[in-house]
Amino acid sequence: MKKLQSNLAQFVEERDWEQFHSPKNLAMALSVEAAELMEIFQWMESAESRTVDAATRRHIEEEVGDVMIYLTMLAGKFDLDPIEAAHKKMVLNAGKYPVSG
Amino acid sequence: MKKLQSNLAQFVEERDWEQFHSPKNLAMALSVEAAELMEIFQWMESAESRTVDAATRRHIEEEVGDVMIYLTMLAGKFDLDPIEAAHKKMVLNAGKYPVSG
Amino acid sequence: MKKLQSNLAQFVEERDWEQFHSPKNLAMALSVEAAELMEIFQWMESAESRTVDAATRRHIEEEVGDVMIYLTMLAGKFDLDPIEAAHKKMVLNAGKYPVSG
Amino acid sequence: MKKLQSNLAQFVEERDWEQFHSPKNLAMALSVEAAELMEIFQWMESAESRTVDAATRRHIEEEVGDVMIYLTMLAGKFDLDPIEAAHKKMVLNAGKYPVSG
Repeated sequence: MKKLQSNLAQFVEERDWEQFHSPKNLAMALSVEAAELMEIFQWMESAESRTVDAATRRHIEEEVGDVMIYLTMLAGKFDLDPIEAAHKKMVLNAGKYPVSG
Repeated sequence: MKKLQSNLAQFVEERDWEQFHSPKNLAMALSVEAAELMEIFQWMESAESRTVDAATRRHIEEEVGDVMIYLTMLAGKFDLDPIEAAHKKMVLNAGKYPVSG
Repeated sequence: MKKLQSNLAQFVEERDWEQFHSPKNLAMALSVEAAELMEIFQWMESAESRTVDAATRRHIEEEVGDVMIYLTMLAGKFDLDPIEAAHKKMVLNAGKYPVSG
Repeated sequence: MKKLQSNLAQFVEERDWEQFHSPKNLAMALSVEAAELMEIFQWMESAESRTVDAATRRHIEEEVGDVMIYLTMLAGKFDLDPIEAAHKKMVLNAGKYPVSG
């Protein structure tokens, strides 16, 4: 995670893109990439989407990468780490949806 | 990352939610969460979105957590790791957007 | 359509919201509302989504209304009418996807 | 509106696409098209997005058309008319956001 964060910071700096990377714009870009990932599964039945061919898997991998890139950059604007945020959210979710039994 | 993946697998298993977690459904949920994150910045100017108060930052952290949770679960369906996918995508992006100079 | 456009213009003017209604912000709001509409169907199977109860139908109607409101306001910024735009796009789509046979 | 609805019904029937057009799938497609429309404004400042060149306006018109097409088809599955739904929602919104005076 640290390595991804520092690689991204360098990538953005080398291209002088920081000026465009307000949290508002990064949140839009994240949402656009999430839609591109969803588009892959748009006309599949749920069951079909569980087994995909190698080309589709590579396409999924690229879009997952794009979503992760924007999520990491957006989180970084507020000194947040997506993995830690996920762990904290899981604790809240466990309270909200207790295991029945 | 490995810890998040195994915690999520256990969380889903305990609640018997695997039946709902087709890649298609997870991609929809990811997109819905990305929209909830974006909604926070909807009516702000770009500049305003760079400095938020403590309550807004906590809200952002929760939504970042939700996006990361669904991204990790979706990627896991295809044995993909979001961080590795991001690193691979950055190599492609570097070729697409060379540093001028 | 004309009546909806003029009602919306009056609604916005009375609340002095025009300052927030840049095309960029309206496009974000449209995307957020489309996600809220999609969320209703998130965990349903495709077949299930074809028959919904009365309360769900009312929920769908409200979200369809919100999407239409933002779409009409956004289109209006460029003197566009969503219905005419749809007719024009159908002509392009018919060329792209000819009827086989 | 009636003409758009009947043209769309014919378009879908001629291509035998009804089988793919569950409300769930149409809601996904609507969300993907809304994201494509939003993508046009992604890196613009709010003020910039208010004046666009002729090529961008044509692009906006096409994406507005796509959003309207899927919104109309989705609404039609529940015998809903997007324009009527917008009028009804405006009445609710007027109650929620009264004009200050």
